[in-house]
Amino acid sequence: MTARLPQVFPHAGLPEHVTVYEVGARDGLQNEKTTVPTEVKAEFIERLANAGASVVEATSFVHPKWVPQLADADVLFRLLEHRPGLRYPVLVPNLRGYERALACGVREIAVFASATETFAQRNLNTTLDGALADIEAVVTPAIERGLWVRGYVSMCFGDPWEGPVEPSAVASVVERLLAFGCHEISLGDTIGTATPGHVRALINLLADRGVDPARLAVHFHDTYGQALANTFAALQAGITTVDASAGGLGGCPYAESATGNLATEDLVWMLDGLGIDTGIDLPALVETSRWMADHLGRPAPSRAVQALTKG
Amino acid sequence: MTARLPQVFPHAGLPEHVTVYEVGARDGLQNEKTTVPTEVKAEFIERLANAGASVVEATSFVHPKWVPQLADADVLFRLLEHRPGLRYPVLVPNLRGYERALACGVREIAVFASATETFAQRNLNTTLDGALADIEAVVTPAIERGLWVRGYVSMCFGDPWEGPVEPSAVASVVERLLAFGCHEISLGDTIGTATPGHVRALINLLADRGVDPARLAVHFHDTYGQALANTFAALQAGITTVDASAGGLGGCPYAESATGNLATEDLVWMLDGLGIDTGIDLPALVETSRWMADHLGRPAPSRAVQALTKG
Repeated sequence: MTARLPQVFPHAGLPEHVTVYEVGARDGLQNEKTTVPTEVKAEFIERLANAGASVVEATSFVHPKWVPQLADADVLFRLLEHRPGLRYPVLVPNLRGYERALACGVREIAVFASATETFAQRNLNTTLDGALADIEAVVTPAIERGLWVRGYVSMCFGDPWEGPVEPSAVASVVERLLAFGCHEISLGDTIGTATPGHVRALINLLADRGVDPARLAVHFHDTYGQALANTFAALQAGITTVDASAGGLGGCPYAESATGNLATEDLVWMLDGLGIDTGIDLPALVETSRWMADHLGRPAPSRAVQALTKG
Repeated sequence: MTARLPQVFPHAGLPEHVTVYEVGARDGLQNEKTTVPTEVKAEFIERLANAGASVVEATSFVHPKWVPQLADADVLFRLLEHRPGLRYPVLVPNLRGYERALACGVREIAVFASATETFAQRNLNTTLDGALADIEAVVTPAIERGLWVRGYVSMCFGDPWEGPVEPSAVASVVERLLAFGCHEISLGDTIGTATPGHVRALINLLADRGVDPARLAVHFHDTYGQALANTFAALQAGITTVDASAGGLGGCPYAESATGNLATEDLVWMLDGLGIDTGIDLPALVETSRWMADHLGRPAPSRAVQALTKG
């Protein structure tokens, strides 16, 4: 008997349309322990598209040794049905991944940087400058070929080793990625510590330095429960692209927790309530996430999915 | 190695201080199945006060038949240590509860109304007018005695039976409670369906009708993951009192979910990050919620508590 859709009450100062950049099939699944068959991934992506998702990050062309879950990237990408207006960016961590992606006919890629020196050293075994040079080596030829390129910047609001991260340090990395030719930059709160004033401060600083918020996306984690409040603050600051993961996929695999990506359903519930168009049909999305949760053998971490499943 | 406290970045248009109205000991525990001994409740409340909580709703003088968990209200209230600046309101559902509360020396009470006719009929076996008359019969003598009185209004943003709830209907109930003499009104999103524009619309409507936001509190549930985003919107609309439950107590008892009250820790993480004073020491609060969770035999639903426990 619970209401199945929120009542619509617009709020001043927000965009009319938000692009939901769906990361469940890549960022979500790569953090799930249960190996998902390639055909199930393909059906998941098709169901997301049928639910109205317009951008679905499909996979990562990472070395199978690092992320065995996504070892089927080449096979999977070739299975996807292409439709007008439906985008399938893929993550390419390096030049080898870029070449694999090109061979599959990929037209949109995402590269991955960090705002902090320590992350580059610990995760990429290089310096921040070294990591950016490696990224430039991918982005430059991709831009020359006419591909669309997104740059992820992780650790924008805190670093597990360094602690506080200065917005000016983030801005420097963002500017370098834009100078390489990236079309869009996703600001990642990888450890989930950001609060709304911090979000606003970073976006305002970037705007002051000439970066149009229309070229920025936000990628929040719900580790401290802040993701949706931060999203609301980001929308007020002019952001129109929000990353989210269907069902909250990639949340911490033990059941009592859900500390991963913002769940797409929780986001769409808010955007629907605000009267902001996303093109996504919430009940169809919920059904998709429930279907995927069945394959993973556990409930979806999304609160909206749980509420709509119980009702 | 995770950051233990958020970085501080103020946000324009927010209050400098927020009163956190702690409901864990009453609204939280009354929804917990594990019976908690009276001495544990008293220690819980003392620990909350030691962590800096300034308003702790201690219990409900409800008939033990309805809420066995709170059958010890009289004994518990007499155990509490009173300190300057520390408030212990209690819920009184009717005249009998009010008389019991008075006999224990209670100085602050809360009464419970609903914005909808169906809720009154289903839960109170009366009409909305009948329920309000019963409330007036408690509030009038309480005000004459100089007690502080809060009025809860449930179903302000949606009703499980009626569905949509008009802000004007909520405003009518709020105005009647204020006319009875209530000092503060808590706007409850009992089924958790509200989104930020809805919150703003209701507060703005009340302000337009002459209700100072300083006399309003918000009471959000995280059923659809919206509670903290709604809180942020409420703060922007002038609200300075926010209800929350330590550890997320009262959340759905099965472990993978957390669909009850906004967790105080998730709220304080945001307020600390925004540089808004609450008087609460977050690590001490987290320690209190962990201690209570041990007594309940399950993890606290709060995401911040989980993150700070793992780190």
